Amino acid sequence: MNSVLVVGTGLIGTSVALALRAADFSVFLSDADASAARLAADMGAGVLSGGALGSVDLAVLAVPPSAVAGTLVELQSRGAARFYTDVASVKQLPVSAAVAAGCDMTSYVPGHPLAGREKHGPAAARADLFLGRSWALCPGPSASSEAVSCVSSLVSACGAVPVITDAATHDRWVALISHAPHVVAAAMAARLEHADDSALSLAGQGLRDVTRIAAGDTVLWTQILSANAVAVAAVLDAVAADLAEAARLLADGSGDKVAALLETGQAGVARIPGKHGGAPAEFAVVQVVIRDEPGELSRLFAAAGAARVNIEDIRIEHSPGLPVGVAELSVRPAEAAALLSALSAGGWSARQFS
Amino acid sequence: MNSVLVVGTGLIGTSVALALRAADFSVFLSDADASAARLAADMGAGVLSGGALGSVDLAVLAVPPSAVAGTLVELQSRGAARFYTDVASVKQLPVSAAVAAGCDMTSYVPGHPLAGREKHGPAAARADLFLGRSWALCPGPSASSEAVSCVSSLVSACGAVPVITDAATHDRWVALISHAPHVVAAAMAARLEHADDSALSLAGQGLRDVTRIAAGDTVLWTQILSANAVAVAAVLDAVAADLAEAARLLADGSGDKVAALLETGQAGVARIPGKHGGAPAEFAVVQVVIRDEPGELSRLFAAAGAARVNIEDIRIEHSPGLPVGVAELSVRPAEAAALLSALSAGGWSARQFS
Repeated sequence: MNSVLVVGTGLIGTSVALALRAADFSVFLSDADASAARLAADMGAGVLSGGALGSVDLAVLAVPPSAVAGTLVELQSRGAARFYTDVASVKQLPVSAAVAAGCDMTSYVPGHPLAGREKHGPAAARADLFLGRSWALCPGPSASSEAVSCVSSLVSACGAVPVITDAATHDRWVALISHAPHVVAAAMAARLEHADDSALSLAGQGLRDVTRIAAGDTVLWTQILSANAVAVAAVLDAVAADLAEAARLLADGSGDKVAALLETGQAGVARIPGKHGGAPAEFAVVQVVIRDEPGELSRLFAAAGAARVNIEDIRIEHSPGLPVGVAELSVRPAEAAALLSALSAGGWSARQFS
Repeated sequence: MNSVLVVGTGLIGTSVALALRAADFSVFLSDADASAARLAADMGAGVLSGGALGSVDLAVLAVPPSAVAGTLVELQSRGAARFYTDVASVKQLPVSAAVAAGCDMTSYVPGHPLAGREKHGPAAARADLFLGRSWALCPGPSASSEAVSCVSSLVSACGAVPVITDAATHDRWVALISHAPHVVAAAMAARLEHADDSALSLAGQGLRDVTRIAAGDTVLWTQILSANAVAVAAVLDAVAADLAEAARLLADGSGDKVAALLETGQAGVARIPGKHGGAPAEFAVVQVVIRDEPGELSRLFAAAGAARVNIEDIRIEHSPGLPVGVAELSVRPAEAAALLSALSAGGWSARQFS
């Protein structure tokens, strides 16, 4: 694979193009909105494809789910590329539309990079958007091995990890790990719309985390949910039933029976892989009291670096209204003691929290 | 207020005692578990109260909700203190039990510090646990102004901010901002218990945030939920109804109507106060690509510190399986340009994300 045509220079398409340019591929760009394509080209994402482009190795259809099949028909009819893929966040809808439109399914490998941002458009694109992310590929039964190999090399060139499955399974998976959680966060956040300011002043990090993704683009998310409606509805139905049952148990004075749901939830959250695919429990957490002033975190990280301790993750707990906070540093357990002594030597109040 | 008796040297009681000792109050400790009281004393939280303590200014009842009234009866019967407060995370239960037990309600001001940890016991205590946190106080109609003033000064001495309300309002507030979100997170996480490993390998930060608090202590949370059952059930019923309705709309092919719930959720999450009580939107976000190695964050923060830029918050995006990540640094908008140029000068790939 040497040459790639990116059709649709929004956030995802332009990010793919930037990643490919960084890996020295020839990249051609097109978009129904000429100004979007021009901006992407000016960002260094590739060159405008013009009208009469010869055939490239791969065409990446970075268009909305409902536009994938029509675009594929048009590209295949003029032999624009040897192979084709798309990046829509649902897969059954574009695949069935492509089959219905009579597309050649041997050269088409549907795809979905598990990456995104709240912002849209080419200006928000980043060459590193897909680094370390999973990228689902859903080749149909008639897809050629050459097509799968070509699209897999696109995924690798973007720094992502291919995960091969079928379209129906993909849609069920993302309903569970992405689409339904968005609605759950929104439903919890919706309860806050008319809450007392004083009630909200008591809010801690837990409420912030549970509701954070509900701040996302509502138009985009409505489209995503509608295109994966059946699978998302199944997850939401199950969550709604569990919550209604918990409410019933509590209202009936059987609150002790809510323990079963909490235990299942605890088991579920423990199954989410942590950084580097490892379990979250593999890290020790060191808590440090920090002052809210320039240079404080610099000094803290310098102390950790001097002790040759690698900070795997950091979370800063907010202290509304006061100029101090607590930083929670995740490190390998074997390095926790070294970090603690380095921080103590530097005058910080630090303790291990496991 | 000069002398304080802390009854119950668990996480909260010992943390109160440590905070008061740091502010040079005289602190006396007692616990039904003598070894817990001894450990707290050894940590510098105060001195053991012994059996025949004279009267102190304030007694802090850091015992479980169901034990508050009985402890208050015992302490008041021997004139242990001039004033009394407790720290239970629900308020109507201990208050009604105290009234029923004939306690003197003029000297008792029920309280609830909005702070905690997943760990329990005196060893997990921290003098700074309450720094910048809200601390609800629910004085009854007969509480004396001297009692309210004394307990308010306790809150201030611990670095917390008093929020005065009544017990029923308090319980409704924490049902909304703490108790119900816990069950919602658990219900979403419960869906993951038997999910495919491959599905979970696609999980991003959104799912992690939505479900994080579901990892908490299930026994403790069952007790909390049971003690605030009616208010929690009301919130859960509303969330369950919204989710069931969203599922119905999606299953019926009316996915576009889910937009209303998403918009309400977006409005709700925007109402949660950010750091220092300000709106989350007040900060600009700068994204930086970082390598996963010792000293990388140190160099990055040193560059920010040298540019006199104060990092208000940081979030590191995980890159499973790859040795790079993206740090998102929150700064005051006026400082974003200086941070970007400092990072660019240092060789980092950084861009502003707003």
